[in-house]
Amino acid sequence: MAEALREDIVSEIVAQERKALDRWGNGDPGEFVELSAPEVTYFDPHLERRIDGQEALRDYYASLAGKIRIDRYELLNPKVQVHGDIAVLTFNYVSWSTAGGKTTESRWNCTEVYARIDREWRIIQTHWSLTRPGQQA
Amino acid sequence: MAEALREDIVSEIVAQERKALDRWGNGDPGEFVELSAPEVTYFDPHLERRIDGQEALRDYYASLAGKIRIDRYELLNPKVQVHGDIAVLTFNYVSWSTAGGKTTESRWNCTEVYARIDREWRIIQTHWSLTRPGQQA
Repeated sequence: MAEALREDIVSEIVAQERKALDRWGNGDPGEFVELSAPEVTYFDPHLERRIDGQEALRDYYASLAGKIRIDRYELLNPKVQVHGDIAVLTFNYVSWSTAGGKTTESRWNCTEVYARIDREWRIIQTHWSLTRPGQQA
Repeated sequence: MAEALREDIVSEIVAQERKALDRWGNGDPGEFVELSAPEVTYFDPHLERRIDGQEALRDYYASLAGKIRIDRYELLNPKVQVHGDIAVLTFNYVSWSTAGGKTTESRWNCTEVYARIDREWRIIQTHWSLTRPGQQA
């Protein structure tokens, strides 16, 4: 693949992810729901089992709407591995939230597998986990 | 893709993963090193940052060799999403280890992104995390 094209894909994927994270940090998971493909599979540390499918994920996200408030975040060292119509985005993420005058830092690992479907990059696999959970408050 | 072909890919990927997990449970991470592609990216809950590249991963795994002993494990509800030469394997995993007469259960979420490179399925992204880490001993 031409390097310029690859760079375009990387920029587009990272921009999409940031846009969804911006909305997420304001308590709105809607962008992640819309970005996810019907076949999406999903892990986060609060779940007993993987979630399968966009409809199940929509229900789960709906339960979180309005409950998240992130003051600031950083997306650390994002990397995109492009293979044809698949782009695997990985990054470390750190967020800061303030409640009752106390600021809490939270550190995460994230994998997002994007697939190009009808010219749109859609998420087919999401995996969020805590970085060194035993070391976090 | 023909359904029979897709089923063959699913069987092959899951068999490869089980073979690597069998060796892992005997303290030998070698199969995972060999399965990983040069470009592999890797997360687990013990790391501060993502590991990039097979050589860095080899060094990390070397530090764990001989330190793992798993009596038994189950790979729960494995799912493979096939997109051309990419296959995204996800599963929940539970293992049991005994030390000093005490058996410990450990529950995990896992994502393995495989890419077909020179006719071999190689791992390009691994993400291991603990299932509900606050609920585990």
